[in-house]
Amino acid sequence: MSIRVAILCGGLGGSRLVDAVARAAGEEAVTAIGNVGDDLEILGLRVSPDLDTVLYTLARLLDESRGWGVRDESYGALGQAGRLGGEAWFTLGDRDIGLHLVRTERLRRGEPLSSVTADLALALGLRVRLLPATDDVLRTKVATDEGELDFQTWFVGRRHADAVRGVRFDGAEGTRPAPGVLEAIVEADAVLVAPSNPFVSIWPILAVPGIEDALRSASAPVAAVSPLVGGKAIRGPLASMMETLGHEPTALGIARLYAGLANVFVLDRADAALAPAVEALGLRPVVCETVMVAPESRGEVGRQVLEGVLA
Amino acid sequence: MSIRVAILCGGLGGSRLVDAVARAAGEEAVTAIGNVGDDLEILGLRVSPDLDTVLYTLARLLDESRGWGVRDESYGALGQAGRLGGEAWFTLGDRDIGLHLVRTERLRRGEPLSSVTADLALALGLRVRLLPATDDVLRTKVATDEGELDFQTWFVGRRHADAVRGVRFDGAEGTRPAPGVLEAIVEADAVLVAPSNPFVSIWPILAVPGIEDALRSASAPVAAVSPLVGGKAIRGPLASMMETLGHEPTALGIARLYAGLANVFVLDRADAALAPAVEALGLRPVVCETVMVAPESRGEVGRQVLEGVLA
Repeated sequence: MSIRVAILCGGLGGSRLVDAVARAAGEEAVTAIGNVGDDLEILGLRVSPDLDTVLYTLARLLDESRGWGVRDESYGALGQAGRLGGEAWFTLGDRDIGLHLVRTERLRRGEPLSSVTADLALALGLRVRLLPATDDVLRTKVATDEGELDFQTWFVGRRHADAVRGVRFDGAEGTRPAPGVLEAIVEADAVLVAPSNPFVSIWPILAVPGIEDALRSASAPVAAVSPLVGGKAIRGPLASMMETLGHEPTALGIARLYAGLANVFVLDRADAALAPAVEALGLRPVVCETVMVAPESRGEVGRQVLEGVLA
Repeated sequence: MSIRVAILCGGLGGSRLVDAVARAAGEEAVTAIGNVGDDLEILGLRVSPDLDTVLYTLARLLDESRGWGVRDESYGALGQAGRLGGEAWFTLGDRDIGLHLVRTERLRRGEPLSSVTADLALALGLRVRLLPATDDVLRTKVATDEGELDFQTWFVGRRHADAVRGVRFDGAEGTRPAPGVLEAIVEADAVLVAPSNPFVSIWPILAVPGIEDALRSASAPVAAVSPLVGGKAIRGPLASMMETLGHEPTALGIARLYAGLANVFVLDRADAALAPAVEALGLRPVVCETVMVAPESRGEVGRQVLEGVLA
């Protein structure tokens, strides 16, 4: 297959779809456009959790059972930093810190995140093209009953225990798409929206001026893959966010969010009964295998998704 | 003993004398004034090797057999950073990096090195007062036949294989002593110059305007402890540096370097025969045990040195 697939993605679900499509169509086929809204600076390090989850997944370094970070990690640096008064609430392993040191030093020198990310991917032997949605700074803020929180304070620091009343992307209006992002969308044979959390993984990508317009003007099919299967997220607080934000916590509720933006909607077989209702929204439903927790399941999911979307 | 001892110190030999005196007179008795000429910025981290060797020695974290870094270290971060294109020639362990992250972040916020160092010492449970010679930037440069090299490039990067033709302290003229340094010297009951390399550990301290004057005007005895025993350094390239810089590579050659600055000179028993020649230089010789490689030997060395210097 010599196709070009652009994938908008967040962290875990995103990295798995990127992996799935790369296994099905070849790494060179894929341009992944990653969320940077949950990036943070901690211990003086610039951390890009979603981009790194994609890097680690593809490089077979991810701790797959935990769903983040590097497998077989040690935690010497964080332990010592915490002992010496540094912030230690955001878990960073030693090998992970090695990557953050390289990225942070290069960003401080003024290099754009996109070129640093490209070099990291290359150094890890990857042939998927991984682009941050933007080289500029955009930060996801979560409105809760305790006030507005930084994304990671809400997600990691407070273990997403606070009900989400709204989401905002600080700085978004001043950002520009990273080099290659719009071209990847416009030139793709298929644009996929990964089964990531729409509110905090996909919306911050679309908040970068120009990206949503590119999606709407793409001639290729734009297909969103449902992150809810049987009304549940594979991982993370999406189902309860759907409820507190006033949406039905099902694949159909997700389809409603993407109606008008996508023209194809991929549902898991478990949600096949929702296909007619999805179709009624003006989205062509594709029902197939979408669960790709096990790495060895991903090639087949990628094949089924591409086949359905390109049909 | 309720005395006050100020110790000018470099890395390994310096940390051992600080430890020795702290064991003999109590940690509260000691103000250590540390060399910052061999500090470096690498992987975006601000590393202060000599200050850290003192911290690690006193906190019983030092890898004593190696003489630097933290014992039982892991190297996950450096290994990954190197794989991803970061500089990996200067060995930094994971726990060590934890400390550098905390220091670097605070320095970047504009805090002075002296207050960061004080907090690190406190967090490690130390009661020795550890001061950098200066909060300003001063960098030791080594002249070699291959040109002038940064200290760590010469020392670590090229394993001090290049003969040293001269030493220079870049930026020294614009530096000021860190808060407390001059007071510690002036108010001490004894000022000790540790058995560190004079050229690259002690001279960069004295290159900070005001410190040498404070030493010369101190009313307390100023005693240098010989870093050469039987014509050899316990560790490091001092003996060969003495030769290439035109000095006799013996304790007597060291005594000549300190004549005029110190008024007491501490020699190891192995060099007792040199005592009359030392005395002829105008330095009161103290002959005692000075080798303190084994931590358990240090209390006795500290006791003997203090007894001899304060006699």
